[in-house]
Amino acid sequence: MAVGLDHSLVNGASALPLVRQLSKDHDQVLKTFRLLIADLCQQFGGGHPGGAIGMAAIGVALWRYVMRYAPHTPDYFNRDRFVLSNGHTCLFQYTFLHLTGYKDMTFDQLKSYHSDRVDALCPGHPEIEHEGIEVTTGPLGQGIANAVGLAMATKNLAARFNRPGYDVVSNHTWCMIGDACLQEGVGLEAISFAGHLKLNNLTVVYDNNQITCDGSVDLTNTEDVNAKMRACGWNVIDIEDGCYDIEGLVQALERARTSQEKPTFINVRTVIGLGSKVAGMAAAHGAAFGSPDVADMKRAYGFNPDETFVIGDEVRTFFHDLPSRGEALVRDWNSLVKQYSAKYPELGAEFHRRMRGDLPSNWKDLIPSEFPEKPTASRASSGLVFNPIAKEIENFMVGTADLSPSVNMIWPGKVDFQHPDLKTTCGINGNYSGRYIHYGVREHAMCAISNGMAAFAPNTFVPITSSFFMFYLYAAPAVRMGALQHLQVIHAATHDSIGMGEDGPTHQPIELAALYRAMPNLLYIRPGDSEETAGAWIAAIEAKKTSTIISTSRHAIPQLKQTRRDGVARGAYVLEEAEDAVVTLIGVGAELSFALEVAKHLKDTQGTVARVISFPCQRLFEQQSVEYKREVLRRHQDIPAVVIEPYAPNGWERYADAGISVRRFGHSLPGKAAYKFFGYEIGVLSAKVSDYLDCLKKGQALRGEFVDL
Amino acid sequence: MAVGLDHSLVNGASALPLVRQLSKDHDQVLKTFRLLIADLCQQFGGGHPGGAIGMAAIGVALWRYVMRYAPHTPDYFNRDRFVLSNGHTCLFQYTFLHLTGYKDMTFDQLKSYHSDRVDALCPGHPEIEHEGIEVTTGPLGQGIANAVGLAMATKNLAARFNRPGYDVVSNHTWCMIGDACLQEGVGLEAISFAGHLKLNNLTVVYDNNQITCDGSVDLTNTEDVNAKMRACGWNVIDIEDGCYDIEGLVQALERARTSQEKPTFINVRTVIGLGSKVAGMAAAHGAAFGSPDVADMKRAYGFNPDETFVIGDEVRTFFHDLPSRGEALVRDWNSLVKQYSAKYPELGAEFHRRMRGDLPSNWKDLIPSEFPEKPTASRASSGLVFNPIAKEIENFMVGTADLSPSVNMIWPGKVDFQHPDLKTTCGINGNYSGRYIHYGVREHAMCAISNGMAAFAPNTFVPITSSFFMFYLYAAPAVRMGALQHLQVIHAATHDSIGMGEDGPTHQPIELAALYRAMPNLLYIRPGDSEETAGAWIAAIEAKKTSTIISTSRHAIPQLKQTRRDGVARGAYVLEEAEDAVVTLIGVGAELSFALEVAKHLKDTQGTVARVISFPCQRLFEQQSVEYKREVLRRHQDIPAVVIEPYAPNGWERYADAGISVRRFGHSLPGKAAYKFFGYEIGVLSAKVSDYLDCLKKGQALRGEFVDL
Repeated sequence: MAVGLDHSLVNGASALPLVRQLSKDHDQVLKTFRLLIADLCQQFGGGHPGGAIGMAAIGVALWRYVMRYAPHTPDYFNRDRFVLSNGHTCLFQYTFLHLTGYKDMTFDQLKSYHSDRVDALCPGHPEIEHEGIEVTTGPLGQGIANAVGLAMATKNLAARFNRPGYDVVSNHTWCMIGDACLQEGVGLEAISFAGHLKLNNLTVVYDNNQITCDGSVDLTNTEDVNAKMRACGWNVIDIEDGCYDIEGLVQALERARTSQEKPTFINVRTVIGLGSKVAGMAAAHGAAFGSPDVADMKRAYGFNPDETFVIGDEVRTFFHDLPSRGEALVRDWNSLVKQYSAKYPELGAEFHRRMRGDLPSNWKDLIPSEFPEKPTASRASSGLVFNPIAKEIENFMVGTADLSPSVNMIWPGKVDFQHPDLKTTCGINGNYSGRYIHYGVREHAMCAISNGMAAFAPNTFVPITSSFFMFYLYAAPAVRMGALQHLQVIHAATHDSIGMGEDGPTHQPIELAALYRAMPNLLYIRPGDSEETAGAWIAAIEAKKTSTIISTSRHAIPQLKQTRRDGVARGAYVLEEAEDAVVTLIGVGAELSFALEVAKHLKDTQGTVARVISFPCQRLFEQQSVEYKREVLRRHQDIPAVVIEPYAPNGWERYADAGISVRRFGHSLPGKAAYKFFGYEIGVLSAKVSDYLDCLKKGQALRGEFVDL
Repeated sequence: MAVGLDHSLVNGASALPLVRQLSKDHDQVLKTFRLLIADLCQQFGGGHPGGAIGMAAIGVALWRYVMRYAPHTPDYFNRDRFVLSNGHTCLFQYTFLHLTGYKDMTFDQLKSYHSDRVDALCPGHPEIEHEGIEVTTGPLGQGIANAVGLAMATKNLAARFNRPGYDVVSNHTWCMIGDACLQEGVGLEAISFAGHLKLNNLTVVYDNNQITCDGSVDLTNTEDVNAKMRACGWNVIDIEDGCYDIEGLVQALERARTSQEKPTFINVRTVIGLGSKVAGMAAAHGAAFGSPDVADMKRAYGFNPDETFVIGDEVRTFFHDLPSRGEALVRDWNSLVKQYSAKYPELGAEFHRRMRGDLPSNWKDLIPSEFPEKPTASRASSGLVFNPIAKEIENFMVGTADLSPSVNMIWPGKVDFQHPDLKTTCGINGNYSGRYIHYGVREHAMCAISNGMAAFAPNTFVPITSSFFMFYLYAAPAVRMGALQHLQVIHAATHDSIGMGEDGPTHQPIELAALYRAMPNLLYIRPGDSEETAGAWIAAIEAKKTSTIISTSRHAIPQLKQTRRDGVARGAYVLEEAEDAVVTLIGVGAELSFALEVAKHLKDTQGTVARVISFPCQRLFEQQSVEYKREVLRRHQDIPAVVIEPYAPNGWERYADAGISVRRFGHSLPGKAAYKFFGYEIGVLSAKVSDYLDCLKKGQALRGEFVDL
């Protein structure tokens, strides 16, 4: 078999002639692929074989014929993005990465699936750190939302940078899903939003095998999926014989790529675990088939049942020209970008800056050096600090889950990210070069889509999300996935603390900070005034491989003389020192001023000397040296520390001996009344601190036993 | 105007004749209602007026004509349930509660909205504790899922208890939603599931005012909502003039109540803030209109602009017979139940037991007194403990989010909760009396729907959910709402800890326990073997006003001689005491045996004496006396404590001086290899403990400064 270099992808011609040319090999390729999957699960007696086996023909259509990518230049900027939202079928992707010539994915590495090899490239779900993987998926529904973000990233870059004859950004995003992404809420949010945005550069391929862990999909979902997708603004294409009809799949995928105005949903009927005894059954989903079954499959396919991991020469040959095809794509694109940069030098320079993921070197100068002295809600401070940056620097894509009037993230002259047709159809201004995103009341998709944008290329985009802090519990799985993937996504969370008031206990985030303070690679920062809000944004923008939540107040808080933006960078710092202090008061965020006032009150009324520290971010503090930590806390000098924060105390026990916390759900009252109701008044707080000091003296309280005051 | 006692609701006749009879008063009622809302927001200059004003006619149709309820017997068991899923429009509900004669909702109380009155019945979102409120709503999307649960509760009770001529349970569930419930993922999950279940006793009324906080819904959602609902298996009825067309609304609601096979979606076109200057605009959503605007509204409506809170006699009269109508409903139903109990004494007794929310007194005897000695995954233990109870006791409705093969919650002979037609259409067995619920891959809706079932009547249902622990991050907002509402919902969460293995970091719950240990009114319990799993279930079942997560292992763990089910009830207890101990080892859940083994290893290799405590539940331990806590921990005797748990340490600092924790995301490896990778091997753990003791001796570590080992 002779396979010449296929330029169809480069010049945009259809791959169908090639499909017909190579179709004689399809049967052997599919059999080989399916047996590989069966063997890979069999070797350690576990894993997810069924889905990958059912999707074999889809994979051939994508990787052999339709997707534009370069195995030997995996980070080629304009590559198509592929997202495996049904991440448990990871062997599907790993095996195609191997067959198509990704260098890291050696045969040995492919066989590392479910092994105890610590440096394996085949974890149970695809991980972004590895070559050829665009996003880490696994928790169902995340991937499809990531794919929406990837497609939005393309749209934004294309609208900003492409010029007639110079489509420097033109890639397509392909997303595989199973039944779950059509059931999970975050998937449904993302589907609805992608339809609204008319993302015609996005194709979702549905591995419709009608089987979930529990059995038939009919157990739980009997809706008309195609009608639902159409109602959401998607093209729908059906493929009846998804196990074998590679030509039909290629036709469908090519139609999808050239869709004019809608994203495309390809509903592909497949059979889970095709060829095995458990084909079409739930048992094919998450367990190896067993040796006898695998041997039977091999016999039926004309393979030797005693051989494992067989990839024949004709199969190797079938895929062999993909690296060179990819390099041709890369060369053509490099040449295009070179000509583009020559013709549009400024634009070219900016494009290269974005590709490098750099910010303009002056970004920090855009932050005000001073702020108004009047009491200011830290959500307003957040706008003062960040909006000048958002206005000037196009890396930042700013979104909100329908709380624009509350979160203060709008800069003068902002343009919405929208399909330009919306102007005609609904009178709504915006276009794809806009950078303000109205996500609707879809917090979870907002954050998962933001992960997708951030994953397009490192720091090319720095997505910002915004909502009430409490609603980041809705988005928590996506916030987690951003932190886990080392993506720089910044979440502007307002209305933190009971001070947010009347909306009541359902909106008052008592225990949520405990989650985010525990979450690895996430900065949860509660700034105490405008100056600290500047520090919070600086920390977030400098954390290029970390996600951040900046947690601000709804209500006006005093501006403090003692705060320092560079103090925030260290997590905690001394606001008021006193050598002879008998207690350290830890102040945090919206209640930072309380700590200062309590110190003053204790001094004025009782002569008790308290020192005060500001503690906006536990994780940043943890990164400091032991010496710095001791200098700030001085607990080793036998000075007890009391933390004042109207949240669950969990985690503060590391830094404090006692806490004035809230250990129940909140109460609907105006902000000031809520503070009063929970005892956050200077007199009451002061009395609690001095009572605690008394108890310590009398031995009724012991250092080392955390006390809830 | 004379309004006779309306028996239409009792005998099932249409209310339309009455609508026509009273229609002359509608205009004044609507005006009065709208001005009341404007005044209520104006008095303290805040709140959400627009939605409530737009929904006025819907409220009249519901409360005056269609809903079956009893203001003077608010807990009447067979009442219709009303859920305000757009909870920020709470004044809508509060005002109708007042007008229809709920005794607690006095005029004074109605005026408490946004006041600093601590005992106000008008919090910013409706709260279940108050008369006439079925569920606490607020975070958008929760209410509609709760409503699905309420409708399922009715279906289940009706299928179980109704007999020909004796429909002792026949109520309908009505749910108001705004745009957000059609955008939020949890709402979309619930909608899809309700359509699947063909819940014809559920009606969702969509306040389609096309306005969200950010502006037009077109900014974020341009899908064909009606087509989407139809695709999901719902009837759809449009009401064009939802601000005034009370007769049309009543017709639609009555059609919905008698729907034969589907839930009904009534798409009601309304105008937010009708009558005010900001009518139809986002500004009407979340702020008072201002005095001049309210005065203008009053003038236009023919009211005195200088008077506030005016409810004319004709309006009072319009609603005046509702309490007596309600009492007639109650009398008729009481009489029906009396006859029913006479005719079916056993069934009647059982029905009364369920209404009281009691369990059969012998429930605890159903739990095995002993368990197999072989190593057992605690998820399997969970089945051993609970399935005999689930089999016998019908209060328990057991659900899973498509993880039946993994969570071990199936009892012999279980019947699925399904529409019986599914047998014919899809060959799936089940009916509405079934108590095993396949929720599909919809963790969030599963938990929110379970809250709805639990809210039907106190402890009549005890819903169980099940999934992997990590996926309870998807469901966290609903778990929170259950705890906040004091609902007894039990979440069986398996695959906790890094020991779950190959699925990798996306599935390994490093930081999630920190959230649930901080969440008020929630028991997060990690049992250490079968005996402790029995203790965990007992604690969960006895906690009649608290939600519980029982967190179990995927992998087999040793069965320990020292464990005690009654120890779990106290949160922590001593497993192995040693008077001369120099260190306390805290063991938890799947890793409890490690603590025992480390103690033995330290003794055998170095003669170091360690005592061991088991610590399955922090919240239960917090409820114990100081004396008990000290007896268990003995930290006041200068014995340092080291906790061993492969989770983020946040929160353990309260009980321990050092921790062997995991402070990064996990790693995809087989369970044992994952433990090894993170240093959870007996030799490594022991070395860390003895190194720590050395550091303490040398003063390199200080008690009171938590050390991560």
